[in-house]
Amino acid sequence: MGVVVNIGSGADTISFESEPTLNSLISLTKVDLDDVNKIILQSMDSPVTLIPQLAGHLIAAGGKRIRPMLTLASARLCGYDGERHKGLAASVEFIHTATLLHDDVVDESSLRRGLASANSVWGNQASVLVGDFLFSRAFELMVGDGSLEVLGVLSKASSIIAEGEVLQLTTTNNTETGETQYLEVIKSKTAQLFSAACRIGALVANRPKVEEDALETFGMNLGITFQLVDDMLDYSAHQGDLGKAVGDDFKEGKITLPVILAFRRGNDEERVFWRRTLENLDQKDGDLEYGIELMNKHNALEDTVERASHYGSIAKDAIGIFEDGREKKALLESIDFCIRRAY
Amino acid sequence: MGVVVNIGSGADTISFESEPTLNSLISLTKVDLDDVNKIILQSMDSPVTLIPQLAGHLIAAGGKRIRPMLTLASARLCGYDGERHKGLAASVEFIHTATLLHDDVVDESSLRRGLASANSVWGNQASVLVGDFLFSRAFELMVGDGSLEVLGVLSKASSIIAEGEVLQLTTTNNTETGETQYLEVIKSKTAQLFSAACRIGALVANRPKVEEDALETFGMNLGITFQLVDDMLDYSAHQGDLGKAVGDDFKEGKITLPVILAFRRGNDEERVFWRRTLENLDQKDGDLEYGIELMNKHNALEDTVERASHYGSIAKDAIGIFEDGREKKALLESIDFCIRRAY
Repeated sequence: MGVVVNIGSGADTISFESEPTLNSLISLTKVDLDDVNKIILQSMDSPVTLIPQLAGHLIAAGGKRIRPMLTLASARLCGYDGERHKGLAASVEFIHTATLLHDDVVDESSLRRGLASANSVWGNQASVLVGDFLFSRAFELMVGDGSLEVLGVLSKASSIIAEGEVLQLTTTNNTETGETQYLEVIKSKTAQLFSAACRIGALVANRPKVEEDALETFGMNLGITFQLVDDMLDYSAHQGDLGKAVGDDFKEGKITLPVILAFRRGNDEERVFWRRTLENLDQKDGDLEYGIELMNKHNALEDTVERASHYGSIAKDAIGIFEDGREKKALLESIDFCIRRAY
Repeated sequence: MGVVVNIGSGADTISFESEPTLNSLISLTKVDLDDVNKIILQSMDSPVTLIPQLAGHLIAAGGKRIRPMLTLASARLCGYDGERHKGLAASVEFIHTATLLHDDVVDESSLRRGLASANSVWGNQASVLVGDFLFSRAFELMVGDGSLEVLGVLSKASSIIAEGEVLQLTTTNNTETGETQYLEVIKSKTAQLFSAACRIGALVANRPKVEEDALETFGMNLGITFQLVDDMLDYSAHQGDLGKAVGDDFKEGKITLPVILAFRRGNDEERVFWRRTLENLDQKDGDLEYGIELMNKHNALEDTVERASHYGSIAKDAIGIFEDGREKKALLESIDFCIRRAY
């Protein structure tokens, strides 16, 4: 059963038994996710109509709901059969959405999930404030749930996310940024919420600490994998298909792993190019294409995906302690899916 | 004892037994507030140095710390002699500071408390993100305290504040805004946090609901008083002394009570002026001065302070149920101080 798909070439070939998708995770969480969506719609409602309008633009536009799905699947993996995971999954999605709204303001992005970004339609002011609203509502949902442990995990995660975003501001345009520092940024700004989303699944199920930790590690490493592939895709021709502009990171001078690898593997002349384009933001036609050429010359894009696979493997091993079943299968496949997006 | 100070003229004269100050509140809370300041400094610390730098600029610059003082004084009024009110007072100040940072981005303000605003020094990006960080830290402090009731009060307050800020966006530049709608805005965006700050004082003291409600009402009406006087001061010559630019609201086309009264009491020609300057933001030299002239012609500034006194009286009566003592005296004087700022 299943076709073997080979990706990459030579020693770096990655094989999947079949084309990896999110289908297992989606079908596993479908019924619960319908309820989560209802909670999301209820909780973003407000007599101030701009709030549901703006939030709805982003939330209804979709996105994969990967974070709430992780909470739902983690709870199920831990044998939970109650209802609490739904409100908390909604809460996680709200924190994520608030972060997106603020990110788009910070990055001055014009596109989000293939649609005009909220800030480009309603302005930065509304995006900042509706973000604050959703963030507060996330905490109201958690308070409704009533677990101080969950509140602790998600308030801590929120601090770390914001800290990571500020750290990223200081690395932007700095070609000296190394891989370790970059990894700190993406752990905080992306992987932290994946990690918290998984951990609270174990928390509601009231499982032993070893299982909480396992799911936290899974989420953290899945998040890193996800972000590495995302950063690689910003230099990839696929990007258009995913509803995002190609070369956004380049235009803003963001220092991501593909740049770090190309910069460190490059010669002096190439480094002059990176400094001019990313530090001084002195960019002209053809620069993006030349940057991609340098990345390909130094295998920077392929190796970014290889690094991603490394963290993906750690994620997979982390949940090895759980019994096999459709929940575990779905979570394992989500790793393969993340990596598969790269191709 | 005490000199009678008469303010205003004729029927509107307001008398104070002596020059009202915040001194009673300040001396009542001084020892506790020192600890609150320590908690604030600890909690805004981060290895990402931009965070304590930016937050410190705003928090160290001072401001009156009126909100944390309200939490401290309310707890003491309820006979509380523990330590919990300190962390929660810090939490209230963090929510307030986060809101200020985001407000300055939304309003594109260049001054805050007489200093360059954080966004004008470090940019909007850092202000948005450090605001998010402080907001998350506020919740971490509350989680550390461990009361779901307090978390409920403050998460609800935060939602309402954000909702009020969005509502204000939609009233900006709209001269049709009425007094009732304006009152809704200031209740949400300002008075809600005063109200929550007072309520949680009663909550930590574990007092009967009637006392919680009394302090909540006190805080709500004090907050309204405070904001009305603030809005009046934006058209007042005193404003320069308070470290804020005069006429900021006018420049941005904000619709506040002085404008609402002048607009509604004015003739057609005057309304054309208000629409041109505040709706179309078509402003020229001398417009601000002419606006103030119209406000004086219609008693709009004086009557804004009269409205403020009305809410101040409600606040005072609300805490009538508490026994007389220095705590009650300090809170009552804070109302007089708010109104006194107008002169």
